[in-house]
Amino acid sequence: MIVRFFVTGGTFDKEYNELNGELLFKETHLPEMLILGRSRVPVEVTTLMMIDSLQMTEEHRELVARACRGATEDQIVVTHGTDTMVETARTLAHGVPGKTVVLTGAMVPWKFGSSDGLFNLGSALAFAQTLPPGVYLSMNGRWFSWDNVRKNKAKGEFETL
Amino acid sequence: MIVRFFVTGGTFDKEYNELNGELLFKETHLPEMLILGRSRVPVEVTTLMMIDSLQMTEEHRELVARACRGATEDQIVVTHGTDTMVETARTLAHGVPGKTVVLTGAMVPWKFGSSDGLFNLGSALAFAQTLPPGVYLSMNGRWFSWDNVRKNKAKGEFETL
Amino acid sequence: MIVRFFVTGGTFDKEYNELNGELLFKETHLPEMLILGRSRVPVEVTTLMMIDSLQMTEEHRELVARACRGATEDQIVVTHGTDTMVETARTLAHGVPGKTVVLTGAMVPWKFGSSDGLFNLGSALAFAQTLPPGVYLSMNGRWFSWDNVRKNKAKGEFETL
Amino acid sequence: MIVRFFVTGGTFDKEYNELNGELLFKETHLPEMLILGRSRVPVEVTTLMMIDSLQMTEEHRELVARACRGATEDQIVVTHGTDTMVETARTLAHGVPGKTVVLTGAMVPWKFGSSDGLFNLGSALAFAQTLPPGVYLSMNGRWFSWDNVRKNKAKGEFETL
Repeated sequence: MIVRFFVTGGTFDKEYNELNGELLFKETHLPEMLILGRSRVPVEVTTLMMIDSLQMTEEHRELVARACRGATEDQIVVTHGTDTMVETARTLAHGVPGKTVVLTGAMVPWKFGSSDGLFNLGSALAFAQTLPPGVYLSMNGRWFSWDNVRKNKAKGEFETL
Repeated sequence: MIVRFFVTGGTFDKEYNELNGELLFKETHLPEMLILGRSRVPVEVTTLMMIDSLQMTEEHRELVARACRGATEDQIVVTHGTDTMVETARTLAHGVPGKTVVLTGAMVPWKFGSSDGLFNLGSALAFAQTLPPGVYLSMNGRWFSWDNVRKNKAKGEFETL
Repeated sequence: MIVRFFVTGGTFDKEYNELNGELLFKETHLPEMLILGRSRVPVEVTTLMMIDSLQMTEEHRELVARACRGATEDQIVVTHGTDTMVETARTLAHGVPGKTVVLTGAMVPWKFGSSDGLFNLGSALAFAQTLPPGVYLSMNGRWFSWDNVRKNKAKGEFETL
Repeated sequence: MIVRFFVTGGTFDKEYNELNGELLFKETHLPEMLILGRSRVPVEVTTLMMIDSLQMTEEHRELVARACRGATEDQIVVTHGTDTMVETARTLAHGVPGKTVVLTGAMVPWKFGSSDGLFNLGSALAFAQTLPPGVYLSMNGRWFSWDNVRKNKAKGEFETL
């Protein structure tokens, strides 16, 4: 079984630009994180976009859905900003039948040292291998069905409806 | 659902003693790792022992089995040294019926910065919530049935038989 | 000999707010950094302000100068944002006679893991103990006299005029 | 001014061997630490040996002394294990006239994340640029003359006699 990763950006992959003090995207850190985790799961990694999820339009979400549909793999992990992760999950739920799709992300950039990103990556990869076909979020060590989850922005965590 | 953690030591929890340059165990780092991962899974953590798995005797393994049987939870994660993780899994397979027990550990101490521990913790917690009753190892992003796994000591990774 | 630290903020002490994805100041990390460095130099730490040095007015700089003049210590380290560190050094050069004052900072927040902050702190503390009275910048492992230094913003480093 | 680094090993450069759980030496981390610290001090780095300082013989110390005498630079930093740093300093004091030689090291390996190594490196590099000719130890943010220092092994710190 090969697990497909689609990278879309989000806090997960943000970096610090030391020349101007702003956050930015360069390359995804996903491959080095998988190496650090000593992952031996066969994976394919494709970067679809590198954007903050607040900037995601419905066109971006459709692009993710097409990529998931077109993939030869049936187990897919999508890295994504947390702010609109639920919206993208809804688009995928309607547009990607018959596959296990797990969206995950991070509250703190992995490069900033105190991140939940590596933990979430471990969880998401595990859920992708074990949950039945459907669209899920993997955050806070838990899995959520796409239609029973929201981000609690005051607490910075995900919860069931 | 509450997930029960039983801590037994292993590389996962080793620290560096700066006074004599040796590795040692103090307290488990599991709670702070769960906080770092922003886990919101209800858990109970019990430390059964803090030893290198090369020092584990059959009595130690029986103690772990009794703890798993006696727990009120049906989802259990056991942190364990990698060298004899397979042996303990076998003891648990024969002594803990009807529960999902996932053993995990690390190749590098979490305190040493470049650890696979946080990644493995995320995976193990996810597998404990999704796999059917049985005894499993969770390492390298994968899950293994207790009777179909060995540690490849030359490569430092786990593989099926 | 006691070394006095005056904290003014700057990248050195910035943190990541995981609820809104912005950088912010909370408490200074200086005490924990000195503990991590196993420093045994007697120090006194006073936070004067916690601001980005681009927001520093001449009134802020005068406040730093008054604090340096009023301190009973003759060795002083000022943590400061890099963008206007040279301007504050000039104010201190005219307003703080007879003391060794070393300004330092960081290009990357210490909390972001890949920081130059701990290295710079070690250097600045050493320069404060060894340079004769005067006002200096300590960055990039080097020391600069206040009147012979500029920040090269394109390279993100300090250089002599 | 070019600062010469002579690497001899010590805790500073120890790593964790994940295949057998033991500490070992590979390459020195000094160059990457200087990059992380954004050091712009011109340096030359030479590895003389990679050993625990408890294994240092008088011949090893003489080798370090010869290297210091033979260097074209007058500012030298020697990275060294802490256990016999004072003994090597004594050998250098008698064998290296007219140069500023600063020995430094770490209580915790730099690779283990919580190290004093980067802080000490910043200090040592600063002391090498500012102290008059002589042989010194740089630890705990302080400098010590070679003939007025000992390691307090119970506290894990250096102190004057």
